Amino acid sequence: MRLSRYFLPVLKEVPAEAEIVSHQLMLRAGMIQQLQAGIYNWLPLGWNVLQKVEQIVREEQNRAGAIEILMPTIQPASLWRESGRYDAYGKEMLRIKDRGEREMLFGPTNEENVTDIFRKHVRSYRQLPLNLYHIQWKFRDEVRPRFGVMRGREFLMKDAYSFDLDIEAGAAAFDRMFVAYLKTFKRMGLTAIPMRAESGPIGGNMSYEFQILAQTGESAVYFDQAFEEIDFSADDLDVAHLKQLYAAADELHDPANCPVPPERLRSGRGIEVGHIFFFGTKYSAPMGATVLGPDGKEVPVEMGSYGIGVSRLVGALIEANHDEKGIVWPESVAPFRVGLINLRADDELCRGVADDLYAKLEAAKVEVLYDDREERAGAKFATMDLIGLPWQVTVGPRGAKAGTVELKSRRTGAVEELSVDALLARFAA
Amino acid sequence: MRLSRYFLPVLKEVPAEAEIVSHQLMLRAGMIQQLQAGIYNWLPLGWNVLQKVEQIVREEQNRAGAIEILMPTIQPASLWRESGRYDAYGKEMLRIKDRGEREMLFGPTNEENVTDIFRKHVRSYRQLPLNLYHIQWKFRDEVRPRFGVMRGREFLMKDAYSFDLDIEAGAAAFDRMFVAYLKTFKRMGLTAIPMRAESGPIGGNMSYEFQILAQTGESAVYFDQAFEEIDFSADDLDVAHLKQLYAAADELHDPANCPVPPERLRSGRGIEVGHIFFFGTKYSAPMGATVLGPDGKEVPVEMGSYGIGVSRLVGALIEANHDEKGIVWPESVAPFRVGLINLRADDELCRGVADDLYAKLEAAKVEVLYDDREERAGAKFATMDLIGLPWQVTVGPRGAKAGTVELKSRRTGAVEELSVDALLARFAA
Repeated sequence: MRLSRYFLPVLKEVPAEAEIVSHQLMLRAGMIQQLQAGIYNWLPLGWNVLQKVEQIVREEQNRAGAIEILMPTIQPASLWRESGRYDAYGKEMLRIKDRGEREMLFGPTNEENVTDIFRKHVRSYRQLPLNLYHIQWKFRDEVRPRFGVMRGREFLMKDAYSFDLDIEAGAAAFDRMFVAYLKTFKRMGLTAIPMRAESGPIGGNMSYEFQILAQTGESAVYFDQAFEEIDFSADDLDVAHLKQLYAAADELHDPANCPVPPERLRSGRGIEVGHIFFFGTKYSAPMGATVLGPDGKEVPVEMGSYGIGVSRLVGALIEANHDEKGIVWPESVAPFRVGLINLRADDELCRGVADDLYAKLEAAKVEVLYDDREERAGAKFATMDLIGLPWQVTVGPRGAKAGTVELKSRRTGAVEELSVDALLARFAA
Repeated sequence: MRLSRYFLPVLKEVPAEAEIVSHQLMLRAGMIQQLQAGIYNWLPLGWNVLQKVEQIVREEQNRAGAIEILMPTIQPASLWRESGRYDAYGKEMLRIKDRGEREMLFGPTNEENVTDIFRKHVRSYRQLPLNLYHIQWKFRDEVRPRFGVMRGREFLMKDAYSFDLDIEAGAAAFDRMFVAYLKTFKRMGLTAIPMRAESGPIGGNMSYEFQILAQTGESAVYFDQAFEEIDFSADDLDVAHLKQLYAAADELHDPANCPVPPERLRSGRGIEVGHIFFFGTKYSAPMGATVLGPDGKEVPVEMGSYGIGVSRLVGALIEANHDEKGIVWPESVAPFRVGLINLRADDELCRGVADDLYAKLEAAKVEVLYDDREERAGAKFATMDLIGLPWQVTVGPRGAKAGTVELKSRRTGAVEELSVDALLARFAA
């Protein structure tokens, strides 16, 4: 993408309304724009990252055997009356009446809707196990929306729902999601700490939340350093072992009685990005989602639900990956892998080299943002540092003559000079 | 995907509530399930197709230079008061109040929101031309939602918005979208007929709607056969020529005065799937979306908007591609390219051949739906015909011994027997 044809409205000033660094940087980098409290437009750079995060979540859900669907944003109140949550949910639910005065709502979550799909189509235990998920915009009418996309009102969530014949099978489904979550966050370059949690309004008897580590995280966490050492990309992770590893929030951590020896205890600050629940028949029983078991008896299915805050993750990723100059994207979620800077857009030789390099990188399917504008070099470098692409390639007059370019790692700051061919070999291989 | 692990709730009966063939087939093929009037769950098969259609739309928008963003579903009423449309829009607009009694709405379209983005970030003609688009769920509270996803209340729309300094540049932006639309529909295997249209509630002075041809289409259209002959994949299409080609709806077509000679006049039935508008300063003037021109004067930008009914297209595609047995997907939007049928799931040899073929096709990134269930052969063939995958590959006991499989084209019905290797070479090349 040529920056001259892109829409990247970066801001020079730190917006006064933004309290936390991810909110500040998302506004400054032209990723989002507030439409009203807690509701954001995703501008091209932000939308690009959100799609990358969404795709990693999708791939790991698919790999874990979950099947993607899409449930609508607007739901009928009648379904929520069946579960008893319509009256219980309170003011966070955005309630709506249509032109015929029918009561509807903008879904804050989808247990009722997915249970309705299940009961209309599934009759036999032979159709189990089943895990259906979707990635859809939700609305929760927060009293005080803030922190940008970290606590918005309209937000993108992945929610999966497992259906099983009995508690053992349900627990296995729960464990598959537990592992899928660790793999998902790892692919984004994040260390995720699963912590036993209360179930809250979803209900149920087993629940973990996943906190990712970030210096600017909202709460203190203590954990076994094994979480930083495990190879989460492995196919044979031992879930039972993982679930036993020590992790505790500040208020529950007791140094005197901690089972982890001090030399293996780590602490950090965490941001909640996922929450998984096993709640058995809480919805299936009242809503009549039953199957015929092998013994011919009709039983309500055992269910769990599994959420990831997809839009929240974009903010959390920035909280975990930034420095004083701006964002430092992990490669897997970077909006572009390479930022190509032509230092002298008015110089024919520089433009020739940069244009050629851009064309070749594009041809090799490398995602490049090419700053081809007539701007000061300082402004170009500052913009690239702010938006945090992993690799910066600079074409300048001296190098253009010698056939070399400069390559900088945004994360380490390390700079090397190399030939155009060597650069192409590095990225376009 | 193994069918035994998929969620494909096909129906044997034609649902009584479905009046048109696409609605019937989408329900029977387990693509959608109604949640309430005009609001649908997209089940795995339907969601798969919707994503493929969306991706073709996206790629052609990108190729035409439009830049993707995402605007939220919920908008503040205040923006629509600025344009004067809040009171004018009527009951089709879903009006909502949040917990603070603030007036909001579920966006039926996004002219106001995108104009607001523009005015907050763009100051100079040097930042033009600009075309921003998004693919987002909209809500229109139809009096009588019907025909499944063809006239739903919550529906997926691609809407693009062009911003230009003057009318000439605006007209060029309009023409780029005009061509992009023809390319988009062609890639889906559809013949699209652009017809001059009234602008309706969007306003403006130039407007075309795009109808795709389907025997079961909603209205009669007459057109120059050139529309069926042009190579829309070419890079150098002559827009002026295209816009002059004859096309007229039933009520405007006058055989006595038709400029097309009878031997080149075609007629058919059409379904509207897109609509493009050029409306100049209708929104930019009242909302103060101005730029400084080369002469230093501030002028309101010239705008156009460009819609494609993405979820509607799924229905339209089926109207244009079906037979008495079910859907006949064009390859570019098929949920899976190949349906692999194991005729005898209980036979070890058959299962070995089919499992191996499935693994090899998957490894070669061919999208395969593998019917590995223990079911009657007749039921398996009927399901495959119903869901309309372009190619059916059947493994039976006789062929399994001889090392051959049967390949059937869903569209032509042509059947051939070929070796497993030849089949792999055909699809996995």
